[in-house]
Amino acid sequence: MFAPAYLDHNATTPLDPGVLEAMLPYLKERHGNPSSRHEYGRAARAAVDAAREQVAAALGAHPSEVIFTGSGSEANNLFIKGAAACLEPGVVAVSAVEHPCVREPARDLQRLGWQTQEIAVDAQGRIDAAGYAAVLAQPARIVSVMLANNETGVLQDVPALARQARDAGAWFHSDAVQALGKVAIDFRVLNAAGVNALTVSAHKLYGPKGAAALLLDKRVELKALISGGGQERNLRSGTENVAAIVGFGAACELAVARLEADAARLEDLRCQLESGLAATGATVFGAGAPRLPNTSFFALAGIDGETLVAQLDRAGYAIASGSACSSVSPEPSHALLAMGVEPALAKGALRVSFGRGNSAEDVAGFLRALAATVDRLKNMAALAA
Amino acid sequence: MFAPAYLDHNATTPLDPGVLEAMLPYLKERHGNPSSRHEYGRAARAAVDAAREQVAAALGAHPSEVIFTGSGSEANNLFIKGAAACLEPGVVAVSAVEHPCVREPARDLQRLGWQTQEIAVDAQGRIDAAGYAAVLAQPARIVSVMLANNETGVLQDVPALARQARDAGAWFHSDAVQALGKVAIDFRVLNAAGVNALTVSAHKLYGPKGAAALLLDKRVELKALISGGGQERNLRSGTENVAAIVGFGAACELAVARLEADAARLEDLRCQLESGLAATGATVFGAGAPRLPNTSFFALAGIDGETLVAQLDRAGYAIASGSACSSVSPEPSHALLAMGVEPALAKGALRVSFGRGNSAEDVAGFLRALAATVDRLKNMAALAA
Repeated sequence: MFAPAYLDHNATTPLDPGVLEAMLPYLKERHGNPSSRHEYGRAARAAVDAAREQVAAALGAHPSEVIFTGSGSEANNLFIKGAAACLEPGVVAVSAVEHPCVREPARDLQRLGWQTQEIAVDAQGRIDAAGYAAVLAQPARIVSVMLANNETGVLQDVPALARQARDAGAWFHSDAVQALGKVAIDFRVLNAAGVNALTVSAHKLYGPKGAAALLLDKRVELKALISGGGQERNLRSGTENVAAIVGFGAACELAVARLEADAARLEDLRCQLESGLAATGATVFGAGAPRLPNTSFFALAGIDGETLVAQLDRAGYAIASGSACSSVSPEPSHALLAMGVEPALAKGALRVSFGRGNSAEDVAGFLRALAATVDRLKNMAALAA
Repeated sequence: MFAPAYLDHNATTPLDPGVLEAMLPYLKERHGNPSSRHEYGRAARAAVDAAREQVAAALGAHPSEVIFTGSGSEANNLFIKGAAACLEPGVVAVSAVEHPCVREPARDLQRLGWQTQEIAVDAQGRIDAAGYAAVLAQPARIVSVMLANNETGVLQDVPALARQARDAGAWFHSDAVQALGKVAIDFRVLNAAGVNALTVSAHKLYGPKGAAALLLDKRVELKALISGGGQERNLRSGTENVAAIVGFGAACELAVARLEADAARLEDLRCQLESGLAATGATVFGAGAPRLPNTSFFALAGIDGETLVAQLDRAGYAIASGSACSSVSPEPSHALLAMGVEPALAKGALRVSFGRGNSAEDVAGFLRALAATVDRLKNMAALAA
């Protein structure tokens, strides 16, 4: 099987072999339903409880604050729609660089009488202070600003933003799906600053697809999206995906243990990449802001991103163009447009997101392949002109 | 490890080894996100597409009618809440024997101005014809009646009920989670009769937890519960749980191939069980109605079901008392109360649900353990009296 170098860890990560090892018993003999009151059920329940403790410990949360869901998208929808269902309609404000699974649920609230506001960002993709203050003054009832952007990797000063939201009387949620495992996260500290809820997901963290969580401050009343059997403190009914939850717990434990070493190594790879890119005249988006250590989002003027992704894939390098998880047709990145990037340049955007399996050779090889591909495309354009 | 005989297949089933085999590549090297536009992404997308075809083929549906979700509960909520969001508030009618993940979403609609009606059942757990006609005459806009009950195994005449619902102008949904793999299901035939949507789930079918589907007639407009990246025709956003979906497809294919042989064998085991139970004076619920071949729901007068489940577990037999997937505190089965069973007898209800791994020895051993346990409990009661 042809196996390109995988440089797209913000889209999803390979499962860590140790995580799969932890999951396998729950895909084999420990097959019980956690709600069953016999040996098989108890073993499954104990596994879910243990994983809940692992996730909580990795995030500085209490196990009772962890609500398992099937995906980060579900956790984001659960918070936004679930909190709105317990409030009088008002303003819901989300940043202009949020993932669609935050922007769309905020927009969905409009048919229930809510007003959706987008919080502007500056040229580096950081929340615009004046714009934020104006939105909070409406006043806003629900605010969601991500910890780290999936495309640029740009980090927001979430504690400061949460404090302002709390002072304005809003519930504050943060999508931490891309941040978890790449930067240290302490829900106790964030919660003290005013963060009421945080979304995290296993498959961005060398864990399995199908497990994610909303960490939830118990003062926030939520209405479940999925009601029924009453699982997850009645906030997410449905038989627990035991094996995936077990994998999520194992992945969290591993990520904490490896965080510092991983981050330093990945930042080093990115530094090598961006040194190489500088020679090509590439624009690196958000480079002036604090960013995730593994992520580089850049564009070369006059080159189409989609075309480059396809060519580089054939040359043995798997990278992304626009947003990571969207299945919609290619359009310039919403985040870049919000940062004031020209649409023509935005259409050329490429994202490299490094992970545990990558090496300095991957960087050097990628830079060579990129240069060769760009040369070929330019020659073709020159011949066609 | 102590491994009791597993007689609780309606709660969840062990993963078929062939299904796990099919899943493993997607838990290892084929780790891509189906939305990614490179080799890893395309391999994941192709796997999801292939599984969609397997599920559709097993159910007589078109692949484009299959919407993957994370659980049967989610699929039931998606239909009921999603269809309601596209209609003017009116009557939503669900049978009195539905799983909580149908009854609760129907109740949730009340805060949006809907009226919830419960459709009565007769003493055998079958829909009461007069009660049904009266509910449809309201008129009802959304009707949900399950194909097979999770506790009694009682089957409903869904084609006839759907025809009446269609004539009354209602959308008709059926929860087929317990029926799939145990009785033949043809969505084309059901849809022609008026069934607009059907819920199915992998983990009741020797497939993994974390994958399920709503089969949906495209004439029905639905609003997504989870919005965002636009996956599943914009009806269920979030990164697809590729490995679980692959397992669901494999499990469906296997179930169709084995259906007749499995059903005959399981009915034979149940027949042996119920012959043995007859000697103990047990009441078998729904025995006068068409039932799933693998399910027996019964009670012995004066014996507490929860106590028996615990004792039988220690004796090496894993069975259920009340409803399969509920984590709420033990209360008499809602379905039995709806069938007019006395609460005292309902509290003694036990469910045995056979599966592929069970044998005649399991039945004989279970009957011996049941008799011994009941004797012991009666003796203790006599001593205490």
